[in-house]
Amino acid sequence: MDIYDSVIELAKRRGFLWNSFEIYGGTAGFYDYGPLGAMLKRRIENIWRDIYVINEGYYEIEVPTIGIEDVFVASGHVGGFSDPLTECGKCHESFRADHLVEDFASNPDTLTRDELSIIIKENNIRCPDCGGELGGVYEFNLMFSTSIGPGSKRIGYLRPETAQGMFVDFPRLLRFYREKLPFGVTQIGKAYRNEISPRQGIIRLREFTQAEAEIFVDPRDKSHPRFDSIRDYTLSLYSDHNQSSGQDQVGMSLGNAVDQGIIAHQFLAYALAMTHQFLMRVGVSPERLRFRQHMKDEMAHYAIDCWDAEILSDRFGWVEIVGIADRTDYDLNAHSRVSKTDLSVYVEYDEPRIVEKVAVKPDMGKIGPAFKGKAKAVMDALKSLDAVNLSNPSSNKMISIQVDGEQVDIPPDMYKVQQVTETIHGENIVPHVIEPSFGIDRIIYAVLEHAFREEEVQGEDEMRGKDDVKGEDEGRIVLGLKSEVAPVQAAVLPLLTRKELIGPARDIESALKKKGVMVAYDDSGTIGRRYRRNDEIGTPYSITVDYDTLEDGTVTIRDRDSMKQVRSPIDTIADTVHDLVYNHTRFEDAGTPIE
Amino acid sequence: MDIYDSVIELAKRRGFLWNSFEIYGGTAGFYDYGPLGAMLKRRIENIWRDIYVINEGYYEIEVPTIGIEDVFVASGHVGGFSDPLTECGKCHESFRADHLVEDFASNPDTLTRDELSIIIKENNIRCPDCGGELGGVYEFNLMFSTSIGPGSKRIGYLRPETAQGMFVDFPRLLRFYREKLPFGVTQIGKAYRNEISPRQGIIRLREFTQAEAEIFVDPRDKSHPRFDSIRDYTLSLYSDHNQSSGQDQVGMSLGNAVDQGIIAHQFLAYALAMTHQFLMRVGVSPERLRFRQHMKDEMAHYAIDCWDAEILSDRFGWVEIVGIADRTDYDLNAHSRVSKTDLSVYVEYDEPRIVEKVAVKPDMGKIGPAFKGKAKAVMDALKSLDAVNLSNPSSNKMISIQVDGEQVDIPPDMYKVQQVTETIHGENIVPHVIEPSFGIDRIIYAVLEHAFREEEVQGEDEMRGKDDVKGEDEGRIVLGLKSEVAPVQAAVLPLLTRKELIGPARDIESALKKKGVMVAYDDSGTIGRRYRRNDEIGTPYSITVDYDTLEDGTVTIRDRDSMKQVRSPIDTIADTVHDLVYNHTRFEDAGTPIE
Repeated sequence: MDIYDSVIELAKRRGFLWNSFEIYGGTAGFYDYGPLGAMLKRRIENIWRDIYVINEGYYEIEVPTIGIEDVFVASGHVGGFSDPLTECGKCHESFRADHLVEDFASNPDTLTRDELSIIIKENNIRCPDCGGELGGVYEFNLMFSTSIGPGSKRIGYLRPETAQGMFVDFPRLLRFYREKLPFGVTQIGKAYRNEISPRQGIIRLREFTQAEAEIFVDPRDKSHPRFDSIRDYTLSLYSDHNQSSGQDQVGMSLGNAVDQGIIAHQFLAYALAMTHQFLMRVGVSPERLRFRQHMKDEMAHYAIDCWDAEILSDRFGWVEIVGIADRTDYDLNAHSRVSKTDLSVYVEYDEPRIVEKVAVKPDMGKIGPAFKGKAKAVMDALKSLDAVNLSNPSSNKMISIQVDGEQVDIPPDMYKVQQVTETIHGENIVPHVIEPSFGIDRIIYAVLEHAFREEEVQGEDEMRGKDDVKGEDEGRIVLGLKSEVAPVQAAVLPLLTRKELIGPARDIESALKKKGVMVAYDDSGTIGRRYRRNDEIGTPYSITVDYDTLEDGTVTIRDRDSMKQVRSPIDTIADTVHDLVYNHTRFEDAGTPIE
Repeated sequence: MDIYDSVIELAKRRGFLWNSFEIYGGTAGFYDYGPLGAMLKRRIENIWRDIYVINEGYYEIEVPTIGIEDVFVASGHVGGFSDPLTECGKCHESFRADHLVEDFASNPDTLTRDELSIIIKENNIRCPDCGGELGGVYEFNLMFSTSIGPGSKRIGYLRPETAQGMFVDFPRLLRFYREKLPFGVTQIGKAYRNEISPRQGIIRLREFTQAEAEIFVDPRDKSHPRFDSIRDYTLSLYSDHNQSSGQDQVGMSLGNAVDQGIIAHQFLAYALAMTHQFLMRVGVSPERLRFRQHMKDEMAHYAIDCWDAEILSDRFGWVEIVGIADRTDYDLNAHSRVSKTDLSVYVEYDEPRIVEKVAVKPDMGKIGPAFKGKAKAVMDALKSLDAVNLSNPSSNKMISIQVDGEQVDIPPDMYKVQQVTETIHGENIVPHVIEPSFGIDRIIYAVLEHAFREEEVQGEDEMRGKDDVKGEDEGRIVLGLKSEVAPVQAAVLPLLTRKELIGPARDIESALKKKGVMVAYDDSGTIGRRYRRNDEIGTPYSITVDYDTLEDGTVTIRDRDSMKQVRSPIDTIADTVHDLVYNHTRFEDAGTPIE
């Protein structure tokens, strides 16, 4: 049993997560978050919101998970978001054709369907499951499709990423931010990929949660106003160059990385720093985290620079959990083209600019009588002509223009081409997009694996008997979750199930609930077993009510990680625990140490 | 322009919500939550969590929005979740057949497809849009369907409610709650209904958000442990009897309602009280809220009692926003049957019970030699026979039993039927389910409409010029949102865009962000216009930095509703505002009043 198995076993047993539809036999690629898992997920999402929404000021929006076809035609997903498949004619199992030909071609992911079909045929590649003959290769689109309304009139797709909704809403968002760059928008929500045969548990899901920020910036200025605050921030960077030259990742300050041109610009570097701060806060291990730059040939053709945050997992090696990219103006241009909507921003210059240009000047005295009711339209069409594009602007000749869909010829005596001076105050630009994209489910797995530990314990309290948790001599399993993400924040444990102890314990439980602290009341089994149960689910603090409580009005608070204990007054216990959890006060200051 | 139009106009203009896919022309039944709307939604959901998850202890889970077919076969949605449709042969528009025949039949929603087809034909009912001939009536399933994996091998549906995921997970949840009733589970998430032609904006969406709790209770005891705490809670109840006798809703205490048998039992009444507390806290108007009981003929056949929370809206009249039902054991039994999984709970009796029963007692001395290796299986089969079901247990005769799929005949001399006494410690029961189900989108609309007001204002500060908000003489629009749900919690306004005022204003902004307060910094336009802008989006507090700030270290806090102002020290302003927003401290205590 490797760590993955241990973590998943614990996660299932204690209610973090399990396969969906278990009573119906399950279906690959779907997981349920149980009571503790959903709480952990919510807390991680809320930390993300605290950083991106409250502190960076990138408001969150929420758009439907179903998108109409146009959206994904523009984004390129209808055309290109697919895998080449081949189906066995005998057992009807489907396989990735590019994976099957790996031994026969050096670059299988660049091959066309036809090329893949030929390689399969020529090398007599058979079904890996049953040895049957494989069919022709076809493209299988990874979007889940459905239809909207009756009569299958309108195709809809479950979105493969939350990003597109933010691009589509660009005009509304631009107005909300009063037409000023840079601004950012975020979204946390479900995304869907109809994977062929997902086999890596929660690492590869067909339905998953993304947290994405789309930050719209002026393409001419990608400096970040707060870059100085993270200039000395040091990250483990695994650059394109390090990868291609066979070196490992190296620790480097973001200031150096930008100065040396390793990271493309300040805005991207700032996004890396924010990502790192988030991952540290939720509990990813700093030693098992690196930022890997996309190699030139793996980066999307339109992107300027991309970095993945990768965590080291015991079973899967380095796994991408966050992608951070400069997507340029690719998406806005694509939606602008397909929707025929202007998605540019008017940006005022700091100083107005004087420009010299060649312009067509209509002779109103002649055009008026010649075109009568149409004269104004003709003059407007002439003025809007880009004189530079006239074949030879200085030699006056007949010009053909389109007016109300009709071709109109303008003789040379009706206009002049001349040099003019104009004052320009600004221009329309299409913003570039910086996108940090977080895979929440993988981050949850990383947090669980990095928090998981088994350790030897020298007999804490009385531990006996068989239970659902490990006994004393076997040590303990601990989920060392940060207290800010732990699903249950405090356990309340009456030493014995006696009325005089239950009363004050229940009072503590209510007081903590009123303060918004998630509390578990547990009175079953020995106190040692109850500590172990809470260690396993990562509860940072346990509060024990015993007979001393009735004498001196104090209770025991036990710290999960150190297993140290303090005595603390019962009448302030709710505030004390609230401050430990939410305000990061020190455990040592929470009461009088017990030796 | 009625209030609905005014609310939607404001919502679109200021970034609460708008139609999805606007740049592509939109699609009915889909709305986006913009920056302010998504924040409002999140806050409303978090209040729901505070009540149900933290305080009631009903842990939240999160299961996929895509469900496999078996789930919805069991739930009845594959078979019965449909509307009867007819399509125009000419313009191909689809219509609800039961709506079209309303003038020709008294009970259209009880008619079969064939009956509807006949009524349409006999009365020559034509297409309402183009007058074309209508086709035969067919059932259109309201679930969005898709297929999972390649080859369309497995049908999937987008869930029409979050509830089913909690029923399917019952075995895991039961274990999590250590096999003890009652326990509750909650879920907040997307649900989908492929409406035919939704026309009521955000009131009828194809993709919407539900917050549902499924509370599993012992069917023999539906008393609620905390019922006394809400016994005197008075709600506006519109009972089945009041409806059928033409009376209005009446105010009544929940104690009385249960005692008089108007509400079926304490657990349901408690759910009504929780619902009311939630709706008050998010800002639904108490005068525009009632609880309407389902009439006998509208209630699901398996339900014991159902109540809808309905809000009064200007355009739509009374609209259901929450449904609260006792669904009995219907769902668990359905999933148990289809999945062939036991979904019962073993419940121990308070006292063991002694029962007399008739049992079959095999004669081991004869069965052993007769059946040899099979003897044990035969004896077990005999013992497990329910003697009452033997045609005539007292007259010994040949019994036929199934052993390992084979029929075996047991002659009368190999067994005896006798009276035995058994001590029974408990029994297996299938829990009943109490379900409060909240339509979050409709609640958001109710909150907006009930918070919306236009009022006359006597010239607050200097208000001039045309702007995106109303000028002084036109009065003001206010969204009187509760401070706990207002998207922006505080506005920071430097009186002028001068460096000496911007500095302290930006410091206040950062200090508030660090405290988790959502703050908007706004320095554009007169202070009066900025107040109006913030009134429109419901910002409860505005903080103004002026030249007095530089002199005496105080700033102005303005209260949105009363428009009163106090001066408060700048060095404690973050705590002061945080406490106003989160701890409900009084505005009057936040500083020195300005006359």
